[in-house]
Amino acid sequence: MSDNPSFVLHGINNVAYEQRPIPEISDDEVLVEVKKTGICGSDVHYLVAGRIGQFIVEDPMVLGHESAGIVSKVGPKVKHLKPGDRVAMEPGATCRVCEDCKRGRYELCPDIVFAATPPYDGTLARYYPIPADLCYKLPDHLTLEDGAMMEPLSVAIHAVANLAGLRANQTVVVFGAGPVGLLCMAVAKALGASRVIAVDIVPSRLEFAKSFAATEIYVPPPLEQGESRITYSERNANAMKEKLGIEERGKKAIDLVVEASGAEVSIQTGIFIARTGGTFVQLGMGAPQVVIPITTLLTKELNFKGSFRYGPGDYELAIALVEQGKIDLKPLITHRFTFDQAIEAFETTKVGKSPDGKPVIKAVISGPDVPVDVI
Amino acid sequence: MSDNPSFVLHGINNVAYEQRPIPEISDDEVLVEVKKTGICGSDVHYLVAGRIGQFIVEDPMVLGHESAGIVSKVGPKVKHLKPGDRVAMEPGATCRVCEDCKRGRYELCPDIVFAATPPYDGTLARYYPIPADLCYKLPDHLTLEDGAMMEPLSVAIHAVANLAGLRANQTVVVFGAGPVGLLCMAVAKALGASRVIAVDIVPSRLEFAKSFAATEIYVPPPLEQGESRITYSERNANAMKEKLGIEERGKKAIDLVVEASGAEVSIQTGIFIARTGGTFVQLGMGAPQVVIPITTLLTKELNFKGSFRYGPGDYELAIALVEQGKIDLKPLITHRFTFDQAIEAFETTKVGKSPDGKPVIKAVISGPDVPVDVI
Amino acid sequence: MSDNPSFVLHGINNVAYEQRPIPEISDDEVLVEVKKTGICGSDVHYLVAGRIGQFIVEDPMVLGHESAGIVSKVGPKVKHLKPGDRVAMEPGATCRVCEDCKRGRYELCPDIVFAATPPYDGTLARYYPIPADLCYKLPDHLTLEDGAMMEPLSVAIHAVANLAGLRANQTVVVFGAGPVGLLCMAVAKALGASRVIAVDIVPSRLEFAKSFAATEIYVPPPLEQGESRITYSERNANAMKEKLGIEERGKKAIDLVVEASGAEVSIQTGIFIARTGGTFVQLGMGAPQVVIPITTLLTKELNFKGSFRYGPGDYELAIALVEQGKIDLKPLITHRFTFDQAIEAFETTKVGKSPDGKPVIKAVISGPDVPVDVI
Amino acid sequence: MSDNPSFVLHGINNVAYEQRPIPEISDDEVLVEVKKTGICGSDVHYLVAGRIGQFIVEDPMVLGHESAGIVSKVGPKVKHLKPGDRVAMEPGATCRVCEDCKRGRYELCPDIVFAATPPYDGTLARYYPIPADLCYKLPDHLTLEDGAMMEPLSVAIHAVANLAGLRANQTVVVFGAGPVGLLCMAVAKALGASRVIAVDIVPSRLEFAKSFAATEIYVPPPLEQGESRITYSERNANAMKEKLGIEERGKKAIDLVVEASGAEVSIQTGIFIARTGGTFVQLGMGAPQVVIPITTLLTKELNFKGSFRYGPGDYELAIALVEQGKIDLKPLITHRFTFDQAIEAFETTKVGKSPDGKPVIKAVISGPDVPVDVI
Repeated sequence: MSDNPSFVLHGINNVAYEQRPIPEISDDEVLVEVKKTGICGSDVHYLVAGRIGQFIVEDPMVLGHESAGIVSKVGPKVKHLKPGDRVAMEPGATCRVCEDCKRGRYELCPDIVFAATPPYDGTLARYYPIPADLCYKLPDHLTLEDGAMMEPLSVAIHAVANLAGLRANQTVVVFGAGPVGLLCMAVAKALGASRVIAVDIVPSRLEFAKSFAATEIYVPPPLEQGESRITYSERNANAMKEKLGIEERGKKAIDLVVEASGAEVSIQTGIFIARTGGTFVQLGMGAPQVVIPITTLLTKELNFKGSFRYGPGDYELAIALVEQGKIDLKPLITHRFTFDQAIEAFETTKVGKSPDGKPVIKAVISGPDVPVDVI
Repeated sequence: MSDNPSFVLHGINNVAYEQRPIPEISDDEVLVEVKKTGICGSDVHYLVAGRIGQFIVEDPMVLGHESAGIVSKVGPKVKHLKPGDRVAMEPGATCRVCEDCKRGRYELCPDIVFAATPPYDGTLARYYPIPADLCYKLPDHLTLEDGAMMEPLSVAIHAVANLAGLRANQTVVVFGAGPVGLLCMAVAKALGASRVIAVDIVPSRLEFAKSFAATEIYVPPPLEQGESRITYSERNANAMKEKLGIEERGKKAIDLVVEASGAEVSIQTGIFIARTGGTFVQLGMGAPQVVIPITTLLTKELNFKGSFRYGPGDYELAIALVEQGKIDLKPLITHRFTFDQAIEAFETTKVGKSPDGKPVIKAVISGPDVPVDVI
Repeated sequence: MSDNPSFVLHGINNVAYEQRPIPEISDDEVLVEVKKTGICGSDVHYLVAGRIGQFIVEDPMVLGHESAGIVSKVGPKVKHLKPGDRVAMEPGATCRVCEDCKRGRYELCPDIVFAATPPYDGTLARYYPIPADLCYKLPDHLTLEDGAMMEPLSVAIHAVANLAGLRANQTVVVFGAGPVGLLCMAVAKALGASRVIAVDIVPSRLEFAKSFAATEIYVPPPLEQGESRITYSERNANAMKEKLGIEERGKKAIDLVVEASGAEVSIQTGIFIARTGGTFVQLGMGAPQVVIPITTLLTKELNFKGSFRYGPGDYELAIALVEQGKIDLKPLITHRFTFDQAIEAFETTKVGKSPDGKPVIKAVISGPDVPVDVI
Repeated sequence: MSDNPSFVLHGINNVAYEQRPIPEISDDEVLVEVKKTGICGSDVHYLVAGRIGQFIVEDPMVLGHESAGIVSKVGPKVKHLKPGDRVAMEPGATCRVCEDCKRGRYELCPDIVFAATPPYDGTLARYYPIPADLCYKLPDHLTLEDGAMMEPLSVAIHAVANLAGLRANQTVVVFGAGPVGLLCMAVAKALGASRVIAVDIVPSRLEFAKSFAATEIYVPPPLEQGESRITYSERNANAMKEKLGIEERGKKAIDLVVEASGAEVSIQTGIFIARTGGTFVQLGMGAPQVVIPITTLLTKELNFKGSFRYGPGDYELAIALVEQGKIDLKPLITHRFTFDQAIEAFETTKVGKSPDGKPVIKAVISGPDVPVDVI
């Protein structure tokens, strides 16, 4: 049988709906009927550029990796799941046996099979086969859309809770108020941060951030003509300090900088604004190289970390914080599309707003034959 | 009484010998008769430039901060020292009460009184007053020159043992084979690193590194005409991988990169060469800004740390490793000068070799009236 | 001048009011006019037994160490405080120069001068001299009683936040619902614990715990005749698992056990109930020796830690969590006494309830001439 | 085919040689021809008692789990091994998907299949099937006996290097000079401990310890008539302090206590002898319950940890330290037996010395048809 409609990328700006065979599952896998899938910037990037860095789409590939669904079939060794269970799906299946997998850093596994990262198919299809331990049962009062959002939320959890180890009463600045930045703010607040300062150049995004999870917002001034970026960033950091009452030490210092924009000036400003002995987590991907004020980083003894995807425990904590009402994902989903409208969904995400002018935070595509209002 | 001859910096390239009053000490201080002082690059920098970053020499300042001597007088509250004790002197007296002092990061204390950092006088004098707990008794079989070398050794200990937390059997690359880089290699080896790869552009330095503590050495190729630094660095990293059998994971991966040169291409190469999930410690100070391959740092989830001076326990471990014979400081001292020859000592360090052509690793100036051959 | 009325312990059950000289302060100290002082079990213990372990009251000693007050005078080097400031007082002044002070573990300083620990006087007097950095300004909306409670709250912070490193969504069992146990529950809840299970043998205490910070409560069954304590404890742990749905692994496992009763059976039960790889913090002091199920501790690889007093950052976090409304200290103060009623206050704390039958959680004694209703 | 002679435990003191089928292997497993197997105390325990705690031998079970051999066959997915490779075998195969496996604590996996722990067969057979990632290729200059010893060495690595995180220049006391205690001493020395103090009641064992890895040795005094164990232990700790110049703080303090005897008085003495803020690792299994001086543990803020088996990276470090010559396993193998002499080997281990009076440290049984002198 092959009733498995799939949304397939064939090349740059070239997508098609296709019937694919229903996947077989192995003994410790489950087959999930995918119900909701969020669109990520990386999906759009593959669509418009055909590649991200070294990952190049050479063969047709199903798109999508932020998904939740309902278990359709379980392998004979699967114990904690049964058909009908509503699950969030962690889209990276790792090798289990390499050094990184064994020591609790599986996000670094070189053999990871990640949905919609070439050459592996993604989740924008009726069915997706997945190791059972990567399916997380959704609490009853969480929606399937919440489940789909666990993927970007886990990215934020990994950076803020796991790698940065944010603790109660710490102060945080988040650069970039896109979906991941917003989720980082939400995680910081949920973990008890005393200040969560959102920085972005788009005021409407900051307004949303303020209503969502930020305690303070800040719009950087424009770059002046002839001003070097580093000069600008130092000026910007000083302006932030002045305006927001930030100091380099003590209660008014910034314990953690989360960089979720990828912009060079944000990285620079973040280093200038962080406290002595503070932590900086880089999440945003922009230019592959940036200028940083290395002497400042050195004399402050900053701890500057890269954060990539998510690892052990991140999905569990993501679900728990939503279950406990500490994070509300619903405001983030601004646009909903049927499976047949997938192209429109990608277009809307790419443009950043729908024809009615409403800005996109997250667009969600329903599975085949799933109404958009069944969330 | 004022028999305290001192070597004083008055302005750029303007030094003089002066008699200064013998310092008073408070109840918990000791007065040390300084016997041996190593010259550091920062001393030379103040001499030739009158400043280092924001630290500007505005008033006459005694130079020198890498010192050992003999206790001359002790305050009434001092218990663990007595006149005649031979001691290594930690040259930064901190406030004891700020947040950073209390939480075990006193190197970040904003009120640190650091010898020969403006406006505080240094140790190139007959007498230096110092809090008793910053004097470390030298084991009998260590020389006063060993004692003076504990300062740069502690810089290496702080970076490699404390901040990077190097463990036995880890692999290390050290960029820069100057005094601090060499000491980082020695620390890495003493802590049980399985590979200590020295990188420098001066082959004679690498020969010394090999004879001293490195297990392998590597000379980077020259930058080609028109080649960007980042392109060069990636090429250089690949050449290192090829030549030295380095991989990104597993037993052949580089667990720790120590950057002790401050050169932009070294920082870049270090990020390219480090293992996934590895650690990078920045020690070298060069240009205040550098370009780094941020996406590589991110996707490898590197832990990139600045290391500045030294903190709790660093001097103790430095002395212990030398006492136990795990580090031999003697080969590093290449030039010795009397107090009267201080200007010549600075000149030699600045030039990098003595008139006879012998390269300088570390030049040591004896205290007033102390013969150079009494080490 | 000597207008410094003090409440002095002369021997077992032998206390007296005395006029003592107003203390001199050194340059970096402040003189605090003590306004509110909570009574701790240890104060009562010195009163009725004249000693705690190796600490023996040999000379007359002022009692009290949980205090807040108003700055009366500041030494010339003090910058962050001025007369009139309302402050919480951290009652242990450490040496600043020993290994433990320097490495951020000052609670272990052997030379600590701790209020009301022999031979050092406590705070139940009009005036108390204290290093300025141990005085923490109270936010305007916190009361002086809140300030006095920062001492026991810091004990809880040290154990739960600092040593155990509790993270959001972890599960906690707290044995003992006395003041410190209750505060541990409050800290656990404030830090985002998903379950805070209170265990005590007195149902009325548990009712209070439930209303205060516990999410669940549990009354252990009685010891049966002839049953060994260890057998009892294992039975009790199994009953807890059954009744509360606790497992040894996964979401239903207990990440952290906080033992704040000192009872042997609680310690044993805690080890039996903890998750594999879990953490156990011992706070309660009871019998100096106890039987523990060592093989269980070993095969689970528990991390079993002693927690003593408080260290760097604990007071700051205590004040912040109260300031942010995450912990409400007011319900804990059940009894208030004037300075003249100090003996009655101690008696009431010793008995555990006032003549009207109301159980004591915390009794607070006002400073000389301070009305009890000025909180 | 069934040419797989195996040494099978049928019940208490009831063993037999049997032919078993040659095991099948799955795609990611290898079949190892077992060449050398060390006898562990647990093997003897199963033989003489039929159980260890909750693990009960109910069906016939092949004994043995400390083994090395030669790869005989590899599954189709195996890449890093080929027939003929000499390998050390990690004898616990874990589930890979539980929380503990994923977060880097696989030693706690509840579904571990551990050789010769009921109901799973052990390695005393010609062939043993094992996941490929649990086979570690032996460097050429290591023997198969070295390979078999990697199992107990990994137990020591896990405790001393991984859980205790021993660092260079720390001081260590190891209680118990049996095979695991001796290996802990060797690991401590290899990691750069400045003092390794061996404690045992058998002087001949201590003599061996001294020749092997201890820097100092100590024989506790006998328990006096009527003396409680805890009183004895405190007296013993004081005697150790006196004799060995041990203090509670500073350079002469004991940073790490490793308890590898399981004796109650050793555990107690260890707590009394440890430094403030020190670490204690419990490895030895003796009585399931012991009395500990809990108030001492608390006021010193000890970090008391159970250590069980081994986890990620332990085998790799074990092999590396032997490969680098930092640990020499050869002196530990005191007795060698052919496969046919297995009963004699167990008997000798049980008695603790061979008929010629030579004390047993480790007895090794060769595989079927493997001469004892091929090491």
